[in-house]
Amino acid sequence: MTRPATGLIRSWVESANAPGCDFPLNNLPYGVFSTTGGAPRCGTAIGDRILDLHGLEQAGLLAFSGDLLTGGWNAFMASGRGEWARLRRTLTALLREGAEEAERLAPHLVAMDEARLHMPFEVREYTDFYASLHHARNVGTMFRGPENALPPNWLHMPIGYNGRASSVVVSGTPVRRPCGQLKAPEAAAPRFGPSQRFDIELEIGAIIGQPSDGPITVAEAFDSIFGYVLLNDWSARDIQAWEYQPLGPFLAKATATTISPWIVTAAALEPFRIDTPPREVPLLDYLLEPGPMLYDIALSVELTPEGGTETVICRTNYREMYYSAAQQLAHHASSGCPMRVGDLLGSGTISGPERDNRGSLLELSWGGKEPIEIAGGSRAFVEDGDELTLRGHAEGPDYRVGFGACAGRLLPARG
Amino acid sequence: MTRPATGLIRSWVESANAPGCDFPLNNLPYGVFSTTGGAPRCGTAIGDRILDLHGLEQAGLLAFSGDLLTGGWNAFMASGRGEWARLRRTLTALLREGAEEAERLAPHLVAMDEARLHMPFEVREYTDFYASLHHARNVGTMFRGPENALPPNWLHMPIGYNGRASSVVVSGTPVRRPCGQLKAPEAAAPRFGPSQRFDIELEIGAIIGQPSDGPITVAEAFDSIFGYVLLNDWSARDIQAWEYQPLGPFLAKATATTISPWIVTAAALEPFRIDTPPREVPLLDYLLEPGPMLYDIALSVELTPEGGTETVICRTNYREMYYSAAQQLAHHASSGCPMRVGDLLGSGTISGPERDNRGSLLELSWGGKEPIEIAGGSRAFVEDGDELTLRGHAEGPDYRVGFGACAGRLLPARG
Repeated sequence: MTRPATGLIRSWVESANAPGCDFPLNNLPYGVFSTTGGAPRCGTAIGDRILDLHGLEQAGLLAFSGDLLTGGWNAFMASGRGEWARLRRTLTALLREGAEEAERLAPHLVAMDEARLHMPFEVREYTDFYASLHHARNVGTMFRGPENALPPNWLHMPIGYNGRASSVVVSGTPVRRPCGQLKAPEAAAPRFGPSQRFDIELEIGAIIGQPSDGPITVAEAFDSIFGYVLLNDWSARDIQAWEYQPLGPFLAKATATTISPWIVTAAALEPFRIDTPPREVPLLDYLLEPGPMLYDIALSVELTPEGGTETVICRTNYREMYYSAAQQLAHHASSGCPMRVGDLLGSGTISGPERDNRGSLLELSWGGKEPIEIAGGSRAFVEDGDELTLRGHAEGPDYRVGFGACAGRLLPARG
Repeated sequence: MTRPATGLIRSWVESANAPGCDFPLNNLPYGVFSTTGGAPRCGTAIGDRILDLHGLEQAGLLAFSGDLLTGGWNAFMASGRGEWARLRRTLTALLREGAEEAERLAPHLVAMDEARLHMPFEVREYTDFYASLHHARNVGTMFRGPENALPPNWLHMPIGYNGRASSVVVSGTPVRRPCGQLKAPEAAAPRFGPSQRFDIELEIGAIIGQPSDGPITVAEAFDSIFGYVLLNDWSARDIQAWEYQPLGPFLAKATATTISPWIVTAAALEPFRIDTPPREVPLLDYLLEPGPMLYDIALSVELTPEGGTETVICRTNYREMYYSAAQQLAHHASSGCPMRVGDLLGSGTISGPERDNRGSLLELSWGGKEPIEIAGGSRAFVEDGDELTLRGHAEGPDYRVGFGACAGRLLPARG
């Protein structure tokens, strides 16, 4: 297991040096923000501030080939890995404690709590995987019994399906409870109405920053990933149960997928690389990892009822994934599928071995049969007005690389 | 059944008036073309010519809010239904026999056989349905026996899944035989290698021209569709068989999907509207059609081995669909899924009741067990070097509205 070689890199932005801060100088996550009356522009989070990178570019303090103005980080990602490294080096130097540019940069710092955060990039296409062994075993046991829990292909490939990019929204966007076809097991025919089993899925999304047009190795796949976000793949379990055979989940997953507003780069996560868990059966060559390509990232989910108090309903870790994002991407490209800048790959629900490690209410409440306790009540599935918040961070010796919050509140179904 | 009220609209472009021509003035399909050394631009097909609409715009002979230059028809589609009707009226007047603009327009006509055709629009997202009853019964009978042929949900909703937009290519683009995980039923583990059961699917694709951000009625859905293309959803049956449970087809469908280069507009197909077939069970209200929303379009598939002679291996009709594109779109949007300009909905394989009406080799050769005869040989699935060509047209009293060819040749797998 690789561990961070260095400690906190101190910044002249004092709040970035505080213990427990998600955004020290070691992080430098990329987002898109606006302030009252202003257009959305690219920025990086530093402590409790956002550095306005478009403003810096305009002021001649940065010179980059990717457009850092609007439309998100796609153009910059497309400018290539050399530029990715150069921007990170440049920003680290500019924001370091003692940097002589501090005075010139200060006017381009915006208080984070006065900014509105937007989608950090344009999602070209969205693919969602099913690649945590504990999650697959839990769901399979519920639906098919413990002997048949894992589909026969599961240990040989990262199972995935294409999701709906148009439904991806940034943290803070309200989510409307969907309607759809529902059929109780005993009913003769389906009816159309609001989903009664609306759920979350705690995931991490990998953002493709370099295109490919044919098979690539796992190592090339790893290098193509620009960064990561937290991802909540809202799921209507009752719509899914009736629609998903034989062609997979469709409308059950098309209402919304919420992502966190800051792209935490692969570069920032480099000290936290870790091996995937031991294989239960050997993998085919094209899926073998030449080194550690997963990350040690602590994750949690909070549920807050309308007007109520939050309860942490899940604590798990990204290291529970059986397949890394690099393996998922290499598999995705193996049939010749063209991959493009801005493609988003969801990890699949991340569950661990213990009950409170389960990343969905479906698993936490065991199909709704064992509702969980929360402050002031209990939950089998998400109720109207509930806010669900995902959090995550990698823990260094004296700093953390955090993702910020990935939150969404459920609105009632259309009247 | 609605039938064309009018006959051929004669054009001063003489070739457009020839019997059997796919592109009379009644059609006016929209594409993107280039000539030697020139940039791709929007055009309309008329007889054996392409009218350069960007050239007309530059010359002040057209004035439209949508950009008719490059990047395909997306910007024009987004300009709205009023503009769609105005462009069609304008072009009909300009190209009509006796039009006084003939002389000024003539320099903007390009010989179709000297032009290269490009993707007519940018595919935002691609959804593929499974909505022909004969196809679903054939495939289901092969895999589950005649009693369980149809999944329980099939007669209640148009079953669909998200496909991969990045893999959609225009007619003429070679297709590379994919590699993937394959597992023979008797094998202990999968191996990685070239697909041995590579297939076609004869479909029609509907192009969304107006966005929506919540549920819409079937009538609204019908009005949102800008036009239609032929679509070949290339499918690796052996990759699919091993990967598709439990989340549906993924890499088996991600190598390529070929579309015809001309968007035949809903306006051109208006005289050919037809009811969907009688329902076997009643539909829920949100899927009811207020009028005929399917089309009578004759379809065929030709297979031409490398250096050989073509054989027509399938003849069928779009009227065999159980669900119209409008019903598919209304279903798609019913959970709140945002739909965008440039979204492409594949009908699903279009098969009819007879053996030679089957729109895939899987069905034609009954899972490979009954290879079909072709000129100089036989076929169970597609072989390297084979060119597959889809054709389609609606037949008027003295004219046809045709799609042109949707062709692709299979290259051998990567060495």
